Amino acid sequence: MSKETKSKMIGIFGWKTSEASYGVTIPYLQYAGQFGDVKILGIDEAINPDLDLLIVPGGSDIDPGRYKAVPDYYTSKSDPIKEYQDTIVLPQYIDMGIPIFGICRGMQTLAVHFGATLIQNMYHETNEHDRDELIHDIDIIKEGFSIHEKISVNSLHHQCVSYIDFPDCLEVVGVYISKKKNDKKYHNSIEVIKHRELPIWGVQYHPEELSYDPLGDKIINELLNYKEVYA
Amino acid sequence: MSKETKSKMIGIFGWKTSEASYGVTIPYLQYAGQFGDVKILGIDEAINPDLDLLIVPGGSDIDPGRYKAVPDYYTSKSDPIKEYQDTIVLPQYIDMGIPIFGICRGMQTLAVHFGATLIQNMYHETNEHDRDELIHDIDIIKEGFSIHEKISVNSLHHQCVSYIDFPDCLEVVGVYISKKKNDKKYHNSIEVIKHRELPIWGVQYHPEELSYDPLGDKIINELLNYKEVYA
Amino acid sequence: MSKETKSKMIGIFGWKTSEASYGVTIPYLQYAGQFGDVKILGIDEAINPDLDLLIVPGGSDIDPGRYKAVPDYYTSKSDPIKEYQDTIVLPQYIDMGIPIFGICRGMQTLAVHFGATLIQNMYHETNEHDRDELIHDIDIIKEGFSIHEKISVNSLHHQCVSYIDFPDCLEVVGVYISKKKNDKKYHNSIEVIKHRELPIWGVQYHPEELSYDPLGDKIINELLNYKEVYA
Amino acid sequence: MSKETKSKMIGIFGWKTSEASYGVTIPYLQYAGQFGDVKILGIDEAINPDLDLLIVPGGSDIDPGRYKAVPDYYTSKSDPIKEYQDTIVLPQYIDMGIPIFGICRGMQTLAVHFGATLIQNMYHETNEHDRDELIHDIDIIKEGFSIHEKISVNSLHHQCVSYIDFPDCLEVVGVYISKKKNDKKYHNSIEVIKHRELPIWGVQYHPEELSYDPLGDKIINELLNYKEVYA
Amino acid sequence: MSKETKSKMIGIFGWKTSEASYGVTIPYLQYAGQFGDVKILGIDEAINPDLDLLIVPGGSDIDPGRYKAVPDYYTSKSDPIKEYQDTIVLPQYIDMGIPIFGICRGMQTLAVHFGATLIQNMYHETNEHDRDELIHDIDIIKEGFSIHEKISVNSLHHQCVSYIDFPDCLEVVGVYISKKKNDKKYHNSIEVIKHRELPIWGVQYHPEELSYDPLGDKIINELLNYKEVYA
Amino acid sequence: MSKETKSKMIGIFGWKTSEASYGVTIPYLQYAGQFGDVKILGIDEAINPDLDLLIVPGGSDIDPGRYKAVPDYYTSKSDPIKEYQDTIVLPQYIDMGIPIFGICRGMQTLAVHFGATLIQNMYHETNEHDRDELIHDIDIIKEGFSIHEKISVNSLHHQCVSYIDFPDCLEVVGVYISKKKNDKKYHNSIEVIKHRELPIWGVQYHPEELSYDPLGDKIINELLNYKEVYA
Amino acid sequence: MSKETKSKMIGIFGWKTSEASYGVTIPYLQYAGQFGDVKILGIDEAINPDLDLLIVPGGSDIDPGRYKAVPDYYTSKSDPIKEYQDTIVLPQYIDMGIPIFGICRGMQTLAVHFGATLIQNMYHETNEHDRDELIHDIDIIKEGFSIHEKISVNSLHHQCVSYIDFPDCLEVVGVYISKKKNDKKYHNSIEVIKHRELPIWGVQYHPEELSYDPLGDKIINELLNYKEVYA
Amino acid sequence: MSKETKSKMIGIFGWKTSEASYGVTIPYLQYAGQFGDVKILGIDEAINPDLDLLIVPGGSDIDPGRYKAVPDYYTSKSDPIKEYQDTIVLPQYIDMGIPIFGICRGMQTLAVHFGATLIQNMYHETNEHDRDELIHDIDIIKEGFSIHEKISVNSLHHQCVSYIDFPDCLEVVGVYISKKKNDKKYHNSIEVIKHRELPIWGVQYHPEELSYDPLGDKIINELLNYKEVYA
Repeated sequence: MSKETKSKMIGIFGWKTSEASYGVTIPYLQYAGQFGDVKILGIDEAINPDLDLLIVPGGSDIDPGRYKAVPDYYTSKSDPIKEYQDTIVLPQYIDMGIPIFGICRGMQTLAVHFGATLIQNMYHETNEHDRDELIHDIDIIKEGFSIHEKISVNSLHHQCVSYIDFPDCLEVVGVYISKKKNDKKYHNSIEVIKHRELPIWGVQYHPEELSYDPLGDKIINELLNYKEVYA
Repeated sequence: MSKETKSKMIGIFGWKTSEASYGVTIPYLQYAGQFGDVKILGIDEAINPDLDLLIVPGGSDIDPGRYKAVPDYYTSKSDPIKEYQDTIVLPQYIDMGIPIFGICRGMQTLAVHFGATLIQNMYHETNEHDRDELIHDIDIIKEGFSIHEKISVNSLHHQCVSYIDFPDCLEVVGVYISKKKNDKKYHNSIEVIKHRELPIWGVQYHPEELSYDPLGDKIINELLNYKEVYA
Repeated sequence: MSKETKSKMIGIFGWKTSEASYGVTIPYLQYAGQFGDVKILGIDEAINPDLDLLIVPGGSDIDPGRYKAVPDYYTSKSDPIKEYQDTIVLPQYIDMGIPIFGICRGMQTLAVHFGATLIQNMYHETNEHDRDELIHDIDIIKEGFSIHEKISVNSLHHQCVSYIDFPDCLEVVGVYISKKKNDKKYHNSIEVIKHRELPIWGVQYHPEELSYDPLGDKIINELLNYKEVYA
Repeated sequence: MSKETKSKMIGIFGWKTSEASYGVTIPYLQYAGQFGDVKILGIDEAINPDLDLLIVPGGSDIDPGRYKAVPDYYTSKSDPIKEYQDTIVLPQYIDMGIPIFGICRGMQTLAVHFGATLIQNMYHETNEHDRDELIHDIDIIKEGFSIHEKISVNSLHHQCVSYIDFPDCLEVVGVYISKKKNDKKYHNSIEVIKHRELPIWGVQYHPEELSYDPLGDKIINELLNYKEVYA
Repeated sequence: MSKETKSKMIGIFGWKTSEASYGVTIPYLQYAGQFGDVKILGIDEAINPDLDLLIVPGGSDIDPGRYKAVPDYYTSKSDPIKEYQDTIVLPQYIDMGIPIFGICRGMQTLAVHFGATLIQNMYHETNEHDRDELIHDIDIIKEGFSIHEKISVNSLHHQCVSYIDFPDCLEVVGVYISKKKNDKKYHNSIEVIKHRELPIWGVQYHPEELSYDPLGDKIINELLNYKEVYA
Repeated sequence: MSKETKSKMIGIFGWKTSEASYGVTIPYLQYAGQFGDVKILGIDEAINPDLDLLIVPGGSDIDPGRYKAVPDYYTSKSDPIKEYQDTIVLPQYIDMGIPIFGICRGMQTLAVHFGATLIQNMYHETNEHDRDELIHDIDIIKEGFSIHEKISVNSLHHQCVSYIDFPDCLEVVGVYISKKKNDKKYHNSIEVIKHRELPIWGVQYHPEELSYDPLGDKIINELLNYKEVYA
Repeated sequence: MSKETKSKMIGIFGWKTSEASYGVTIPYLQYAGQFGDVKILGIDEAINPDLDLLIVPGGSDIDPGRYKAVPDYYTSKSDPIKEYQDTIVLPQYIDMGIPIFGICRGMQTLAVHFGATLIQNMYHETNEHDRDELIHDIDIIKEGFSIHEKISVNSLHHQCVSYIDFPDCLEVVGVYISKKKNDKKYHNSIEVIKHRELPIWGVQYHPEELSYDPLGDKIINELLNYKEVYA
Repeated sequence: MSKETKSKMIGIFGWKTSEASYGVTIPYLQYAGQFGDVKILGIDEAINPDLDLLIVPGGSDIDPGRYKAVPDYYTSKSDPIKEYQDTIVLPQYIDMGIPIFGICRGMQTLAVHFGATLIQNMYHETNEHDRDELIHDIDIIKEGFSIHEKISVNSLHHQCVSYIDFPDCLEVVGVYISKKKNDKKYHNSIEVIKHRELPIWGVQYHPEELSYDPLGDKIINELLNYKEVYA
């Protein structure tokens, strides 16, 4: 891909990738790099109004205090840098109307920002073997948003956005299709969301780890064109 | 120590001592067990009004969002169970007037509860060798609180309570005495605090790891007798 | 589950969950927490007559000296804290008539208390591959104790209660159903026992690791209601 | 050393030297091999009346139930093979009058056999740095048992025989000489014992790890000659 | 098995089971213990003429210098203790007519003693996946030595006795039956040998790891009865 | 430090900080962050003419082929990303006149760019103990460049710029002061260089790891002010 | 194989097989040793005109700077010793007309020498599971070079020679036959090459790891006979 | 060092430097490379009559069977490749009169070749702390062989050549000078030997690890000139 065609500027929140380094993991760089020039954002970097897209990446579990819940035994420790980005930096980008794409924890934090709560541990049994299959299908339930191919995605999370108190300003676009019969627990769990008015999308799966993902491509292209169309 | 003399009931917040277990570390059990019967408190256990003392133990760094700070690169991840105990459970015990003893992070969370802020990383240089000596002395600066022996304590923390915005309702009882000449950075750092009116004390060091600590003994005995004297 | 409905108090023997910590593993807390408020019992804590149920959890092998046997090469080291609880504390709870539920080693120690012996190593061959399947079925052989669903349980033990010298005061409620043809060694091995008169049950499997276990639920509910019915 | 002069037969209790092997550690073989032919004894091997000496080697902590104590948090798990040898096999050798030399745990088990109790944890503080020095001196306090050289030994134990309830049939031959001033805790702790009538000795240190130990040599030679002199 | 019936005395060469211990692995003790009292033999222990059977166990590869071969790249380092037992001690037992049973390397060393050579590396390709199956069948090719059950054994070796220069005083009793079609390399490889005149047998497989091995039982019983029949 | 005063923009080459992540290590972020806003540069990011300073950080050894040398046995593997930045990206920044500060390998690559060669292994003996002390002094040998304090720096490198073929366009500003008498090998080794005309400096030590470094501060401030003064 | 018949001399470039040793891996020695006497070549050893064959073995990725490419995130660090051999030593052997056989990276470096470029990462997705099967088939596409058996080879590389800019002086002899339907990415990837005029061959697979490889045998025999036929 | 001056050819026995590689360690290559061109010799490579020097390097302990000793518990396993080189290849080089330099185990194997025996374990106590200092001095005791500098060498061995049965054809040139008073055990232990007539030297220390060793230089130069002077 020649640089000339990379007219879009995409920001991605950086994080501590190890005890002593700060940056992002390479799959995010490769994925976002297909769509534009990628900027790794510092913890407290000044808000950049020129971004065409902000990617909010995955990470450790969200502090359950943010949605007023008693912590589950298996909720992981929370990353103070991500909590800061989520609660101090992200709202400023939302207020500015910058298009935003949340991935996994990124989708969850967007949902919590708008009032959602999370199911902290979808699998409360320690040794259960029938976990969410790594590769599963998604059902697009939003009308008018057609993808003409079957969408198979991956899944590495143990938390998900809850239907309880799901905020009105968001809508569920895609849900998990469980292969198991009568799977009341996981079937229809929330996999893709969008804001009803703002240029904000979120997916529970990891598009940056997939070799073929028409849904992610469609979302990013729509978000990248948002400014031109609406601004 | 015979059971008959153990008339006092001491509660201590439990935590995840490993990925799959909940309880407390043994030095806390041995230390508190010298003064009474010890109860390990569950995450969301009902408030116990019969406690003669609540011990708030050490742990990973406090979420800097609680004192409105940008997270430092070296601030550790925060434990959601401890954050819940600190922000939801602990205030109820404070309101009930139960005597409370905070150790290390426990002292810090009490200070933050009353409005203090923390210095997130006392040693911002990576390879600095002149860290807080493990064994150091404390200077008791509060009048009328005499200990007739030199107090040597231990220290394992990299955060401490700041003098900036130190709340009026607390007072500094003891400070760190640096052995280094002209040590402006660490000398006089806050090591022992107490509430001016409530039966609440905190120490930055770890009395449960010491074989001889007259200061800790004095504090615990004073707190254990509080109910008899004042209530 | 709201706290108001948790009227039952359940004690569980704590143990050293690591070299330096004391408590219980989280699956026990989650499992018992479904039925009432859970108290972690200290090594030498005073007998609590208010318990509605005492859970005796699993652990390392029982000292074979307790049932007068030469130790097998593969019998593990014995935990002095558990041996103390088994031989000094547990008999006091039995004498008081507190309902007791023994799990895995907990069932074995109850059996040994009443005079049973153990088969120390069900699999004396080192490399044998046809070990007890992790998931197997149980056959309820006691009349009048019907469970209308097939009971599939798990199994992690290498010792079991022996039919030889099996005490009269106990009865075998459930046995292992081997899937292997003509399996004389494991078929019918003892999986569930109860005392003929006292409110004491034991299971060889681990209900706290299962997501669905109607047998364990039935036993615990029966034990929790024991006091109301009989006392 | 030629085989012809090895007229003495020395037995030593074997143990599980790893998860899957049985034998003894090499220093014991080298040490005992200086004085005679060494036989590794099996768990349940028939009592051998021809032994000139039985060595009871070191190992993990003795089950505190044997001397009626509540287990300390830091008492290690107990080895069922050693407990069996101590309580079933060793008494038969004592009854037969076979000379016996107990080393470290071996001395402790002999003392417990005759009614002694142990201090379970000489160092109850976790981080104490002034532990028993690895190399220390012994003071021979028994009259008439002179060694004309200073005795420096090693020490790896955290338990020791207590003066409380020390049995009358034993006598203390040597004690620890602490180098620390006013060391009330460790000074005079019991390091060497003997039976007043039977050919039984025990040392708390490890002679098999020393390159020069006149005390151990003297004890073994006295025990090896016992049969010739008295029988 | 009661001790009274254990009239046979079985010796087994000990070895360094770890860097610092000497003995044998437990499967050998369990296996041999079924047939008699087991004695672990020291490196340089005096020849014991009372043994009813000497077991020569497995171990690392034989020094190829003993059969005048250039070492293969994958021949392991040789154990000087085993080489000493093989070349200095074993010949004395052979000369005394003590029945001997060699297992794996033990069979190989007996063969080399009588003049055989070894194939040093049956699998000279590094990544070959079609190695000797762990469980395979044996064909008894010696007339008059019938076992009425199919013999399935295990195999962990990468060296084997060669047909080239196979000594006349030995005979091949059993061979490997390869399951692969036209397997010229492994089919018929030597699995069981016996001496034509002396009470000496060897098997390439590991009977001490099997739960059912009628061939091994038959060999040991024949060897244990040898003295009574012939001596 | 408030953001308002951070008017300078500092770029730093990013690198693979682990197998799967890209960014920089935290000490560089903290160090450079004291002087301005820090941008992590991507591998093939477009040249940014607005940088006030480019920092070229440390890393694995430079490919000796770049200075036409036979590789030494101890020269490490070379990082293709850094080689690309050094040979393709860095020359463009040099040509644009952007101020540049090279640290450790960064200084070496600048020197090689202008024609220098490196001593590949200052310590060719494997076990030599008298390596460059971690903390040593620097002697400023350039006239007119005075620092009024003794400069003590750190050192972690095993390669250094050679005096042989040292390019005329550079000058040596500081050298290593060996504490060893008659140390011909290390004494006066090149520690600080600058370009005679361009705003380019390099230091062999690691200022980002020091808590006090007036030399580094002076260099960076001079470079940051270069544009204002000269451009 | 007797030494007398080993008339051919085969050189193989050595490398650092660990941090502190230099040589070659054993499969190369075993493989080449079947065809002649093998000499391990030193880094800077004088060119040996008597070699009948030079083997250029595998190793870490080639420095992408050699074929003017931006490094991929997953291109490994480059080995300076191999880069030196490839760019300084190998061309001298090519110029002298010594027959050369390149294996894996060895084939790649030969191709790059003659002007080819590499695909740096055939699998740009991180978690893709359908990687090149370890064992696959090759299709010989060059006329007149018949092998009458199906050729199954192994594959461990993640880079390959590109058809883009493939040099005219080389020709593709064999290609990868993908088992997957419509596999546009891997099908027909270059697996075997030869020079049109010089005695130079290269294979992407590892013949030294195969137990049966008629293609490799054919190539080596042709190269070894080259001198006799043409020189 | 230019190649032109490297007229001497030095062979060194290769060995398995890891489980899967063959060669030599780099310090030997660097050391020998100072004196000539180095050839790594294969296991069974044809004897090379053109060598100016053969270096016999260090390694694991010699098989004690070669000097008719019972193996010590701490004698390591023996390397069959080195044993082959020592007993089959080395004698041929000795017979041909090629100059030979043995280092550490290399000196020991030369001594054993000529009839010497080894002390298998100089330190029979497990925990002894006063081991041979890593750096010690050597005393040259042979007249007429003067080195005008103090010789300080290193030492990593636990075996040494014995004075008992020391062969007449060898002479002791240098001995260990113990720094300890009255050190009867180590003082005067054999450190340097030479053959009285053949060009054969051996040193117990490791010259290839030293940065300055006039003794090793003198020996190698004398051996390298041997052919010119005597042949």
